[in-house]
Amino acid sequence: MTTIRTLVWGEFRHEKKNPKVAKIYPDGMHETIAAFLRRDPSLKVSTACLDQNQHGLTAEVLDETDVLVWWGHMAHGEVADEVAERVRRRVLEGMGFIALHSAHYSKVFKGLMGTTCSLKWRESTDKERVWVIAPLHPIAAGLPSHFELPAEEMYSEPFGIPDPDELIFISWFTGGEVFRSGATWRRGNGRVFYFRPGHETYPSYHQAEVQRVITNAVHWVRATVRIPDSCPSTPALEPLPPDPDAEDRSSIAHT
Amino acid sequence: MTTIRTLVWGEFRHEKKNPKVAKIYPDGMHETIAAFLRRDPSLKVSTACLDQNQHGLTAEVLDETDVLVWWGHMAHGEVADEVAERVRRRVLEGMGFIALHSAHYSKVFKGLMGTTCSLKWRESTDKERVWVIAPLHPIAAGLPSHFELPAEEMYSEPFGIPDPDELIFISWFTGGEVFRSGATWRRGNGRVFYFRPGHETYPSYHQAEVQRVITNAVHWVRATVRIPDSCPSTPALEPLPPDPDAEDRSSIAHT
Amino acid sequence: MTTIRTLVWGEFRHEKKNPKVAKIYPDGMHETIAAFLRRDPSLKVSTACLDQNQHGLTAEVLDETDVLVWWGHMAHGEVADEVAERVRRRVLEGMGFIALHSAHYSKVFKGLMGTTCSLKWRESTDKERVWVIAPLHPIAAGLPSHFELPAEEMYSEPFGIPDPDELIFISWFTGGEVFRSGATWRRGNGRVFYFRPGHETYPSYHQAEVQRVITNAVHWVRATVRIPDSCPSTPALEPLPPDPDAEDRSSIAHT
Amino acid sequence: MTTIRTLVWGEFRHEKKNPKVAKIYPDGMHETIAAFLRRDPSLKVSTACLDQNQHGLTAEVLDETDVLVWWGHMAHGEVADEVAERVRRRVLEGMGFIALHSAHYSKVFKGLMGTTCSLKWRESTDKERVWVIAPLHPIAAGLPSHFELPAEEMYSEPFGIPDPDELIFISWFTGGEVFRSGATWRRGNGRVFYFRPGHETYPSYHQAEVQRVITNAVHWVRATVRIPDSCPSTPALEPLPPDPDAEDRSSIAHT
Repeated sequence: MTTIRTLVWGEFRHEKKNPKVAKIYPDGMHETIAAFLRRDPSLKVSTACLDQNQHGLTAEVLDETDVLVWWGHMAHGEVADEVAERVRRRVLEGMGFIALHSAHYSKVFKGLMGTTCSLKWRESTDKERVWVIAPLHPIAAGLPSHFELPAEEMYSEPFGIPDPDELIFISWFTGGEVFRSGATWRRGNGRVFYFRPGHETYPSYHQAEVQRVITNAVHWVRATVRIPDSCPSTPALEPLPPDPDAEDRSSIAHT
Repeated sequence: MTTIRTLVWGEFRHEKKNPKVAKIYPDGMHETIAAFLRRDPSLKVSTACLDQNQHGLTAEVLDETDVLVWWGHMAHGEVADEVAERVRRRVLEGMGFIALHSAHYSKVFKGLMGTTCSLKWRESTDKERVWVIAPLHPIAAGLPSHFELPAEEMYSEPFGIPDPDELIFISWFTGGEVFRSGATWRRGNGRVFYFRPGHETYPSYHQAEVQRVITNAVHWVRATVRIPDSCPSTPALEPLPPDPDAEDRSSIAHT
Repeated sequence: MTTIRTLVWGEFRHEKKNPKVAKIYPDGMHETIAAFLRRDPSLKVSTACLDQNQHGLTAEVLDETDVLVWWGHMAHGEVADEVAERVRRRVLEGMGFIALHSAHYSKVFKGLMGTTCSLKWRESTDKERVWVIAPLHPIAAGLPSHFELPAEEMYSEPFGIPDPDELIFISWFTGGEVFRSGATWRRGNGRVFYFRPGHETYPSYHQAEVQRVITNAVHWVRATVRIPDSCPSTPALEPLPPDPDAEDRSSIAHT
Repeated sequence: MTTIRTLVWGEFRHEKKNPKVAKIYPDGMHETIAAFLRRDPSLKVSTACLDQNQHGLTAEVLDETDVLVWWGHMAHGEVADEVAERVRRRVLEGMGFIALHSAHYSKVFKGLMGTTCSLKWRESTDKERVWVIAPLHPIAAGLPSHFELPAEEMYSEPFGIPDPDELIFISWFTGGEVFRSGATWRRGNGRVFYFRPGHETYPSYHQAEVQRVITNAVHWVRATVRIPDSCPSTPALEPLPPDPDAEDRSSIAHT
């Protein structure tokens, strides 16, 4: 069994500012997530936070990361553009990326999607019922046909994402809305998974089904290759007619 | 018949620097493209260039544009980030976008795709044979099963794009390569089409089949809606249980 | 404006057996559907039924049909295999096909999908709220963000279909379920649209939004080409090395 | 490591009729394929043939099969409809299915796709160069950017398939054609992979890269669930308004 080097990144701000959140996630949401992932012996799990140097996402750290799990909400704008771009490029090389809940609006996810990633939302007393649309998908392994989060923030369509490669979950909300709550995209040589539940004021990451989904997803998006970006000129593999302009050819590289 | 307001954007640099290009496209590549589009009475065609104020892409101009056709190559880096972002947002609102040839590396196309958009290439004497993969697609209307460009720059896979929503053309090259040379993506409320042919040193935009494809594509990607981005809080449509924390709810908007 | 020759096919059995249904659709569901389609001057609309000769779907009729709208439920098994296969082949040549409600289980739709097309269901007092997932899609033109059917049969995921090419609607039901209620697939040279509402005991086809969707869909799936099936041997377009076995080549056609 | 029960099905007719084929595949093509798969210790490989009772594909055999690899060509019509349908249903329940070369025209593959699966072809001296379009895909693991088959039958677009979920390979042919030569589809709870090379008169299944692709693919399409088809009526999960017609409800099951 190959070890999957998994990094859980947390914004870690709500937990410090809001006693209600701190009570649910005393060590931070990222530590709760890391804790349940550590129960899987094939995962080697570490954590990083916004307020660390370079948000804990140096080139060296990303070099040693197979899968990055991301939770952020109130401080997306404080993530340095340079770091967000470094993460995005690392995904395109082959690192897996899991965006949780409000990470739909993170710089990394938006950069990978190319779209607004906007949605409609409501903080209230909605129940969320997550339906499994693709029971064959490894991310849905071990789940029943649907499961419920007793109270969650509501997210509603339209969700400003590119059509997913695989739509795995759709959520039903008490207040009358639906949402594509679990979906995957291949981006370059990396795999991306978005999963909706996990507002900071609800104990969603303590719930078994949510933990199962995220654990399954770490396996699904794990890096299988690492291919640095390049855009090379390449010689012909078959004979070409003579090129009268050969000397004259533009030497301008694609940049 | 609704008029489609079509703007052809050209970098217009090669034509000024390279006499060979100037001979093929004496008024600039954008004017050649605009000229054949103007033969379609349902299109109202204008042009813009890199060296104009704001590259000719002010908010006012984009407001009045249904479809933007983009050719750029040697000066992608000179397109202001602010303008590229304005164009990208306008696409997400509903403007159609057609990226031609080396525009695979334009800021707008890369921003919409979220990926590297890299490829392998060769300037030589390759023939390109474009195969129609999806004969039912309106962009392929009126084309034979395949058509040839007698000489073109070669582009080869892997092409660093997200999986297209619709793959319409695949090209064969003399030197032994293949390339997904025509593809569409929905991005937000806009439609995007990439079409490979059109290196500046070859007369590809004078060729009937290429003109047919681009004309068809303007119709295909045309705006049918315009929806500004928003991420609103929304009231419930069905009764919810009472909310003990109603007053307490975070007033932090999704930003 | 090109005329779209539209054929509405109705099973026309419930209306004869169940007075409740007959009251809602006195001339049959197909005539109600045909009537609202006829308000679009670009559509030339006719109807056919199960109990006609060859179910009204002779080769001659299909020859003159651009779009076929299908409603069936209790008598899928009475549709002759030969006729279902004729319709399927005609779709693959380029005829548009719209499957309504319980037509998810029709021979034609199942044959085009290749899958079970099964789902979960309930006849009760559910309200259905149809959410527009893809506001840019022409099938959603003119619709609000969502619309409601006051009472409908419930259909629930998992829906045994191949991943749609375009997912346009997702439905929310009072009883707690969700369903991919509007989706498209390209199949050969034809376009297919499935739309969920329309149980025979509810007046859904009298509702404006439902009529709008189906009218839009007729335009969307309309035939643009007609390409008969073939699997021909084809000569090389480029020089090949000499073939020592040329005389010896199998003359077995692909059959 | 879980054992994958893999069944290689061969038509086994060309080998008996054509000495040239018999020389390349003395024990039958299926035995050559089974032999290289057996080098993977995680696969438990058996074989079956057209001329066995029920073509070796009884319900009992399929029950014990996780992945079925299929090669057929000259005798597609001799496969009993009943057996082809049994295999198709087993795929929809979760069995993986790999269609090789001329199996594009097998009853099982055509039934799963719903389309013509037609193409253009030529038996001659073409070289085939297979390009990896999706280097991240596990089916492409361990392959270079492209590999060559020195001589193969040519298959050309348009290929009458539904858009693949994942396009992994595109082939280049000497004679000037291209073909989507490796692609996957989810169908129900099963995964399907089509791979083009393998005409009976060429030694393609003796080639390392081809063996690698097929071995990788067995792992990719392996069953992870088994879900029998059903279309049940289901009780509400949330309160519904009273149903005045409850007694009156149609008892007609969806059939």
